[in-house]
Amino acid sequence: MIQCPRGTRDFLPDEMEKRRFYENRLRHVALTFGFREVETPIFEDAELFILRSGPNVLKELYAFKDKGDRDIALRPEMTAPAVRMFVNGMSNDPKPIKIFYFGQCFRYERPQSGRYREFFQFGAEIIGSANPEYKNGARPETDAEAIAMAASMIKAFGLKEYRIRIGHIGVLRQRIADAGVPADRAAEVLQKLDKKLYEEARPLMEEMGVSAAEIDGIFDLTETVGGPEVLDKVPGEVGDYLRKVVSFLEAMGVETPEIDLGVVRGLDYYTGMVFEAEAPALGAEKQICGGGSYTLSELFGGEKVFSTGFAVGFDRILLAAEKEGQEYVPRGIDAYVLSVTDDMRLKAAEIAAMLRREGISADVDIAGRKMAKALKYASAVRARYAVIVGAKEMEAGAATLRDMGSGEQKTVEVGDLPREIRQAQ
Amino acid sequence: MIQCPRGTRDFLPDEMEKRRFYENRLRHVALTFGFREVETPIFEDAELFILRSGPNVLKELYAFKDKGDRDIALRPEMTAPAVRMFVNGMSNDPKPIKIFYFGQCFRYERPQSGRYREFFQFGAEIIGSANPEYKNGARPETDAEAIAMAASMIKAFGLKEYRIRIGHIGVLRQRIADAGVPADRAAEVLQKLDKKLYEEARPLMEEMGVSAAEIDGIFDLTETVGGPEVLDKVPGEVGDYLRKVVSFLEAMGVETPEIDLGVVRGLDYYTGMVFEAEAPALGAEKQICGGGSYTLSELFGGEKVFSTGFAVGFDRILLAAEKEGQEYVPRGIDAYVLSVTDDMRLKAAEIAAMLRREGISADVDIAGRKMAKALKYASAVRARYAVIVGAKEMEAGAATLRDMGSGEQKTVEVGDLPREIRQAQ
Repeated sequence: MIQCPRGTRDFLPDEMEKRRFYENRLRHVALTFGFREVETPIFEDAELFILRSGPNVLKELYAFKDKGDRDIALRPEMTAPAVRMFVNGMSNDPKPIKIFYFGQCFRYERPQSGRYREFFQFGAEIIGSANPEYKNGARPETDAEAIAMAASMIKAFGLKEYRIRIGHIGVLRQRIADAGVPADRAAEVLQKLDKKLYEEARPLMEEMGVSAAEIDGIFDLTETVGGPEVLDKVPGEVGDYLRKVVSFLEAMGVETPEIDLGVVRGLDYYTGMVFEAEAPALGAEKQICGGGSYTLSELFGGEKVFSTGFAVGFDRILLAAEKEGQEYVPRGIDAYVLSVTDDMRLKAAEIAAMLRREGISADVDIAGRKMAKALKYASAVRARYAVIVGAKEMEAGAATLRDMGSGEQKTVEVGDLPREIRQAQ
Repeated sequence: MIQCPRGTRDFLPDEMEKRRFYENRLRHVALTFGFREVETPIFEDAELFILRSGPNVLKELYAFKDKGDRDIALRPEMTAPAVRMFVNGMSNDPKPIKIFYFGQCFRYERPQSGRYREFFQFGAEIIGSANPEYKNGARPETDAEAIAMAASMIKAFGLKEYRIRIGHIGVLRQRIADAGVPADRAAEVLQKLDKKLYEEARPLMEEMGVSAAEIDGIFDLTETVGGPEVLDKVPGEVGDYLRKVVSFLEAMGVETPEIDLGVVRGLDYYTGMVFEAEAPALGAEKQICGGGSYTLSELFGGEKVFSTGFAVGFDRILLAAEKEGQEYVPRGIDAYVLSVTDDMRLKAAEIAAMLRREGISADVDIAGRKMAKALKYASAVRARYAVIVGAKEMEAGAATLRDMGSGEQKTVEVGDLPREIRQAQ
């Protein structure tokens, strides 16, 4: 028996209905925030992802040579494709450009609980709100807009417990530079700090000549977590900047997120504010969302444009909601139409077609079942009503409407069926 | 500058909005017909598609070896994956199982007008409505249900001109067998006839010992096209069967489709009724939909289950609607919120957040623009209203609401903004 490939999944009807429900909630939030949807190909030149993430990404890429000997990769994330799309086709549009996307991403790694080779991401980017006022083109409003939308999305999943932690890549970068970490080795150190691998970060920095006291200070900084009051410890421009982000978030009614200077994010391309969200229900692998301000377009041959974006791990956040005990009840169909006798089968098809034209979801017996078995099938497909088409009622242009929940039945004129069925919804 | 890979496309916001609009129309039709959505992985073991279509399919597959040395293929179609899913996880569900799916498919071929390496298909399957009454497990109701849904989908695109042609694979199969084509070479002949390649079909059949008169008769049969009256020429069971399909279609109000015994469909797995739809607006490559009754599950290790399904070429049908002159007008956003002075920026963010919570799509100036430029941006993103937040109006808890179409302005209390904006929709 052929199975689906390792690390991939089939989504059966109940699961799929739930996923579409939440996908559409995310889409609704993005549209209310004035973002517009885009879509990019499932695969890209592998080069695109190497430019974004460095050659190390290759070992995790689902990459292959196509028949034209091109190095192709199934996309591991969608920020790079979205920015490539911007460079290719949207760079002259009025800025900021606010876009979002949803779809499959792929990585070649050992599948484990909640981690798949084919997984689903939702992401959004605000591209190009250039700003003379702040360093690195950042605007506190842009960053707040992204965080506020992420918060609304998490709420849209009905998550009860979650944390949003906001940091700034500049603080730690400045600090390790001041401590003597050479610029070309900063990424190594930041990647260790990102994962709180202090035992590995210490010898690495020692080797670079950073003193034990400096190292302790750096570790302290990455453990600086708390409410907006923590910002008192953040010197100069960055502190002012993050205070403004927090003011905008408060104005937008976002429950005050935490400040956490230990939010590093592994990648070089971040330029300022960075943030992450986590759901404790997930245990160790608890991150559900991450993002920040960055520049990327110049790596793909475009102008340098300051941007802010984030991605939501759709599978992870769904799993978190499930672990919190949230249930999704599948909708089922409105009506199941069946005929009492074979000579009513054409009539049953006619009634089903009429209901469908009225926007009512209606199935009709196509298996030639007798009534008792057809009603059993109607229950199995969660029909709210059965429309029973019998010769006697049909003479008066009517059919029997059976409430599948209560078992109550009444005779209804065919023309009134849509109204009767809709009323009960 | 990195481009998207050959034969693939980016969908920018206006195009994407249009695509989602029509995708959702298709989804709506499928749901009203009582079908439920499923999703399968983007790639499968290449074996799956070889089992369905024969080894010849390999040369068109976007196939590769993954790092685990597995032969993987990006899916070229979704019937085989859907049936595999059925065998793996749904075979014990009450039948018939009515499922649909929408997504990317891939084929490695020279990209040409309207044909892409990454393309989008919508498909539906009715799996398992076993039937003692007819040959090959077919039921006319099942086949009519599939054709009726295909017709509703084509209508959902607003296509003015299209043809639906219904045939039956049994007629031609029987005829060429009677004429002396060996069973193991029938597929070769049918593939030529499917493409109306008479000049190639003739020597092929001659070589198999079929007489010139028989060959002419076979060609005539494939040119037998017309209204239901054509069925008078179809002998025995098949004629009766297709007449029943037509009766059900008439009962469901489907404008009478054509009978065309030349609809062959290239693949071995079809068992009875086959149908195709075409849009003349597309010229030579005019097929927009195709399907029929088949069995496939037994090839994937499951029980043999009679099914009927079809697929709609989403890119093609969109192109047909476009060529017919249909226009889609992007929705734009409801409101763009901007502040007259910098001290009103927090207030503007607060109002935008309030509107969004009310389900109104609202953008807010995050670029720090002066009013004239901000209004220009609001036009560019097709905002229906601008909400202008000034200090003086704010003192009375109000803002200026500007109709971006007419240019009319009025002062509105902040709490009344959602109602005012919604009223005009």
